[in-house]
Amino acid sequence: MNEKNNPLEETTLSTKPIYQGRVISLQLDEVRLPNGQPAIREVVKHPGAVAVLALLDDKMLVVEQYRKPLERTLMEIPAGKLEPGEDILEAAKRELEEETGYTCGSIRKISSFATAPGFCDEMMHLYVAEQLEPGQINPDEDEFIVCTAITLEEAWAYVREQRIHDAKTLAAIYAWQTYKLTGTFLP
Amino acid sequence: MNEKNNPLEETTLSTKPIYQGRVISLQLDEVRLPNGQPAIREVVKHPGAVAVLALLDDKMLVVEQYRKPLERTLMEIPAGKLEPGEDILEAAKRELEEETGYTCGSIRKISSFATAPGFCDEMMHLYVAEQLEPGQINPDEDEFIVCTAITLEEAWAYVREQRIHDAKTLAAIYAWQTYKLTGTFLP
Repeated sequence: MNEKNNPLEETTLSTKPIYQGRVISLQLDEVRLPNGQPAIREVVKHPGAVAVLALLDDKMLVVEQYRKPLERTLMEIPAGKLEPGEDILEAAKRELEEETGYTCGSIRKISSFATAPGFCDEMMHLYVAEQLEPGQINPDEDEFIVCTAITLEEAWAYVREQRIHDAKTLAAIYAWQTYKLTGTFLP
Repeated sequence: MNEKNNPLEETTLSTKPIYQGRVISLQLDEVRLPNGQPAIREVVKHPGAVAVLALLDDKMLVVEQYRKPLERTLMEIPAGKLEPGEDILEAAKRELEEETGYTCGSIRKISSFATAPGFCDEMMHLYVAEQLEPGQINPDEDEFIVCTAITLEEAWAYVREQRIHDAKTLAAIYAWQTYKLTGTFLP
């Protein structure tokens, strides 16, 4: 589709800042819809994030972490938000090392995706890291994390038990499953 | 893990409402971290959403829709937020019919997942619908949607071109690929 003349486009009439925070900000955009009518869009702004499928001896690294919005602990692949101006690949290596202690000899992109495009601009950049070398974990001062390694079969069991219960980790497990079946993480 | 005595848990000390909107609300939770220190968590509240992998003659239905947060059009599987008190399965059928016009003779859950658990409580409930029957589309008054059907090969091509570029649609395509390879949408 030619985005220069997009019949679905919503034109911004005004933007009202509501909140500016440490991780996210919130604004209300008044738009003109394709039919000419006005509407309000609630938009959460996020700096973007990285996540890493880290493979070690046919296991994937997962971290357990309390997620306040869900009021529970989730088991997720290592991930975190981009720092201002940070290179995305460097961010992926940094988060892997901070949350798991491992550095990697090989890392490559699987895919990027919007996590919640209806109301948020967050882009998640998913990588696969291999040739892992153990080191020292170094989480953020407000992060409390437990790192373990699980097989693909354990990963699916945890998905069924909803211990693994987030989009990026589910996508990473599907990618790993697909790699084992087809030889590629993204057909 | 025993959630009653969770060593990673963050205890809520206070909650400050910031914004109450049409789709989302925002609050700041002051918490006590596992080490006893206080911290602030920015929490976006969302009613939850449904998404449908709708399969018709070995193609999946996708809808093109403008996504204001990303300032672009995305091709996504039919999806939408839960109405207050709405049954999740009924919501999935409703969104499928509203956005594509199709009703289904068969629908079942693939998985549920948090879209952005670091700052938002949104849960996405992913279904697969089959035995589709055409009908009349009926989008929300502020929704402008173009519906098409694509093959799995086209889906992967669109992922590579980033025309498909969101977590739920990527998960659905991986699930469909996995079904074709293994006979199950979630191994």
